[in-house]
Amino acid sequence: MRVLVTGGAGCIGSELCEELLARGSSVTIFDNFSSGTREHVSGLLEHPACRLVKADVLDRAALDAVMGEVDMVFHLAANPDVRYIPGQPTDKDLQLNTLATHTVLESMRLHGVKKLAFTSTSAVYGLAPKLPISEHDFFPQPISLYGATKLACEALISAFSHLFGMQCWIFRLANIVGPKQRRYGKTVISDLIAKLRQDPRRLLMLGDGRQEKSYLTARDCVEGMLFAVERSREQLTVLNLGGDDTITITRIAEMIVEAMGLRGVEFEYTGTEGGWPGDVPRFVLDVTAINRLGWRARYNSEESVALAIRGILEGPDG
Amino acid sequence: MRVLVTGGAGCIGSELCEELLARGSSVTIFDNFSSGTREHVSGLLEHPACRLVKADVLDRAALDAVMGEVDMVFHLAANPDVRYIPGQPTDKDLQLNTLATHTVLESMRLHGVKKLAFTSTSAVYGLAPKLPISEHDFFPQPISLYGATKLACEALISAFSHLFGMQCWIFRLANIVGPKQRRYGKTVISDLIAKLRQDPRRLLMLGDGRQEKSYLTARDCVEGMLFAVERSREQLTVLNLGGDDTITITRIAEMIVEAMGLRGVEFEYTGTEGGWPGDVPRFVLDVTAINRLGWRARYNSEESVALAIRGILEGPDG
Repeated sequence: MRVLVTGGAGCIGSELCEELLARGSSVTIFDNFSSGTREHVSGLLEHPACRLVKADVLDRAALDAVMGEVDMVFHLAANPDVRYIPGQPTDKDLQLNTLATHTVLESMRLHGVKKLAFTSTSAVYGLAPKLPISEHDFFPQPISLYGATKLACEALISAFSHLFGMQCWIFRLANIVGPKQRRYGKTVISDLIAKLRQDPRRLLMLGDGRQEKSYLTARDCVEGMLFAVERSREQLTVLNLGGDDTITITRIAEMIVEAMGLRGVEFEYTGTEGGWPGDVPRFVLDVTAINRLGWRARYNSEESVALAIRGILEGPDG
Repeated sequence: MRVLVTGGAGCIGSELCEELLARGSSVTIFDNFSSGTREHVSGLLEHPACRLVKADVLDRAALDAVMGEVDMVFHLAANPDVRYIPGQPTDKDLQLNTLATHTVLESMRLHGVKKLAFTSTSAVYGLAPKLPISEHDFFPQPISLYGATKLACEALISAFSHLFGMQCWIFRLANIVGPKQRRYGKTVISDLIAKLRQDPRRLLMLGDGRQEKSYLTARDCVEGMLFAVERSREQLTVLNLGGDDTITITRIAEMIVEAMGLRGVEFEYTGTEGGWPGDVPRFVLDVTAINRLGWRARYNSEESVALAIRGILEGPDG
C-alpha cells in the first residue's frame, strides 16, 4: 500500500511511518516542520520506500502533487497546541484543523483516494454527562477551540465518506505521550520536567492537581490505529483509542520527582478545576469497541506516563 | 434590546425582524441579498428602529462596524442550498456556514457582545439510530456538507460560549416553510409547484415519495426562538424546533395538486431512498424539551405545508 502521512514528522506520525515501512508500505511523509522535526524522520528517509515532502497541509497544490500516487491517507497534521492562549487569534485551530482537513478531503476526492484515517481527540466530547465516555452515546459539546475544530473535521469526514464513498476511520485519542519532544504543543510531562529543572524545590501545577486523564504511548496509538484499519470494514469507523484507566496530574508529578531523584519538592496549584479555560478536567474513555475488535493497549496510563518520563529524561533532548 | 440579525432579509430573518420590532427592539438587518430579498424587508425599513446593512457576513470589517452598537445577535445567514450539486465546490457550506459563524463569534468576542441565537438544522444528526431524535442522546454523523458545516458551527459556538462567557441558543430547525419565495435554495413545495406549472399532467419527484420530514412555518419558528431566548437561562441552550409529527413527499404533492385544482396528475419517482445524496430520508424530532419550556408549534406539519402552499399560490410571486 502507498500511504500518505500528513504530520508524518510529528511524535505520532514518525512512529506511524516507521511501522508502515516495517510492514512493507511505501510512505510519503508530508510535514511543514512547524511542530514535527527532521530528527524524528531522518532515519526513515534512508529507506528506499520513504520520501519526504516539506509542505503545508493547507497548500492544495502540494497535496495534489502527491495525492495521485497514494492509496490511503493518514491525516495527522494539526495544531498541536490544545490550549488557547488569550490574545492569540481564535481561528488558528479552525485553519490548521478544520480547513486543513477539508483540503485533504477535497484533494483525495479529486484524485479518487478512497481511504482516510484521522486522528481526532477525546476533547471533542467536552464535559461528558457520564463517564466512561463511549463513542456514540451523547451529543458532544466541546469546550475548547481545539476540540470544536476537531469535531468539525469529524463532521466533514462523515459527510465526505457518505457523499463520495470514502472509507474512513476516526480515532478519538487519549493523551498521547512518548519519548519524542515536540517543538511546540508540549505535553504535561515535558512541561513539569522543564519546570523542575528550573526550580527543583517547588512545582506549580495548573489546576487543582485532581485533573484525571487517560494516557497512551505513541507506539500503542500507532498499533491501535493500524489494527483497526486492517480489521474494521465499516464505511465509517469511529473509535476511542486509549486504555480504560486514568492518572491524576499530582500522581504524574510524583512520578517525575521520583524519576529525577528529587526530594522535598513542594507542590503548588493554581487551584482551578481544569488546568486552563477549555481543559476538560476529567475524562475516562470507554474503549470496549476497539477491545472487541481485538485490540488492547499494551500499557495502561501509569505505565505509559512512566515510559514517557524515562524517554524524555534519557532521550537526546533529555 | 438592540439586535443584529444576519440573514435578516431571508424567509425566517425578515419574519424575525418584524417580530423583534413589534416587541420594541431596535433591529439591524445584515444581509448580502444573495438569497434574501429587498422585498422581504422594504416594509420594515420604514420603522425608525430598523436599519439595513447590505454586507456579507464573511466581511469582518462590516460586522465590526455594527457590532459595537448591539446587545445580541441572531445569526441566521447561511448557505440556503442544503443540497450538494456534483461539480460545485465542496467548500461553499464551509465558507458560508462555518467560517461565517466564526467571523460572527470573533466580532462578538472583540466587541463584548454576549448573547447569540443560532439557526442550526436537524441535518446535523445525519442518519439517526432511533426516532424521534432528541437533542442530546447520540453522537451525530451528518451525511451532507450542509449538516456537517452546521455541526461545525455548533461546535464553535459551544467552545466560544464556554471560553468567553457568551450565552448562546442553538436551534435545530425542522424544514421551515412559509409564503416567502427564496431566490435560491428553494423548498420542496416551491419546487413541486414550479414543476406542475411547467407540466400539469405529470410530476417527477426526487426519491421514492416516502421521505418523511417535519415542517414548521417561519412564523412558528420565529416565535419558538424568541420564546426560548426569553425563558432559557442556561449558558448554552440547544433545542429541536418543530412539531412532533411528519408528512411524506407524496402527501405534499397530493396537497399541492388539490390546491392547484389539477386532476389526474401522474406521480413519478426517481426511486432512491433519499431525494439526493446527503438527504436524510426520514426524521422525526423529539420536541419535548421546548414543549417543557412552555412552547408548542401552532401548526403541525400538514397545516404548515398547507399554509405554505396557499401562501405561494396566492402570494406576490404566485
